[in-house]
Amino acid sequence: MDMNIVILRLGHRPERDQRVTTHVGLTARALGASGMLLASNDKGVIISLNEVAGRWGGSFFARIVDSWKQEVRSWKEGGGRVVHLTMYGQNLPDVIDDISKEESLMVVVGAEKVPPDIYQAADWNVAVGSQPHSEIAALAVFMDRVNAARGTEPLTQEFPGGKLKIVPHDQGKVVKEV
Amino acid sequence: MDMNIVILRLGHRPERDQRVTTHVGLTARALGASGMLLASNDKGVIISLNEVAGRWGGSFFARIVDSWKQEVRSWKEGGGRVVHLTMYGQNLPDVIDDISKEESLMVVVGAEKVPPDIYQAADWNVAVGSQPHSEIAALAVFMDRVNAARGTEPLTQEFPGGKLKIVPHDQGKVVKEV
Repeated sequence: MDMNIVILRLGHRPERDQRVTTHVGLTARALGASGMLLASNDKGVIISLNEVAGRWGGSFFARIVDSWKQEVRSWKEGGGRVVHLTMYGQNLPDVIDDISKEESLMVVVGAEKVPPDIYQAADWNVAVGSQPHSEIAALAVFMDRVNAARGTEPLTQEFPGGKLKIVPHDQGKVVKEV
Repeated sequence: MDMNIVILRLGHRPERDQRVTTHVGLTARALGASGMLLASNDKGVIISLNEVAGRWGGSFFARIVDSWKQEVRSWKEGGGRVVHLTMYGQNLPDVIDDISKEESLMVVVGAEKVPPDIYQAADWNVAVGSQPHSEIAALAVFMDRVNAARGTEPLTQEFPGGKLKIVPHDQGKVVKEV
């Protein structure tokens, strides 16, 4: 069963959140998500994520969406389920078994403020531990554990079609142009 | 065997990297590290991390250090080992078994530019996948996998002595003052 995970980034403030949202997108890509939808009109982030994806390979996409509500509705109508990462939710270890059975997951990653409706719209509100930390870290642990529950290893996946490839090395930097 | 993991944050640029370094510290704390050393004179980050730790409990510490080289040297002299997280390193799945046998680990988390000497000073240069992503995500996956290899669950650990505690909930936000 192939996994299809798409990130929905909510509450992004243009300029101010650019760096964190870029980290969210790159983390999603590196850990096996298909793409990221950004519910904010900030083209800089999208351009930079798509540039990385082009240079380093794989089929990750990033695009701006007009209405997060419409995206959530369509996703559910297509049979997908929605996970909202929030420190207030149910703890990940308690729900990971159910969640990882799903084939299509939309993972909502909020910035500091999210529209309150998302708590009701989500199928699961999930905490990656009930402590304040980082939405980037929460997404990373979530993606890694979903992969583990499905028996896949995101850190050895191939990213075909890239122009650059790192050769793992015990010291120094080895980058191959392909 | 108790684990002792301390983060060493390198290459932090005051102001510019404040938010990302704060995420690094909070992630470290939430996933079971003892503390973070910051090799940069940026008191704002330290104050904010120590405030969170005071409010939410546990014994996490953050402090500024003068010389990262001295810290690495002392750590090694005390019998600890040093892991440098870098996308150019050996892939985590290939080294996790060896690393997680160690009792005391210093985990070096660089910002965009790190002093090249760190590659030689580290016992392991470790990539959390060989793709560009986020040092916050890399630290999160590293911490989570070291915990898993040792059979500990960081997401259910207690943080005693805090003033605030979240009660996990399937919807909404429940915070208890304790």
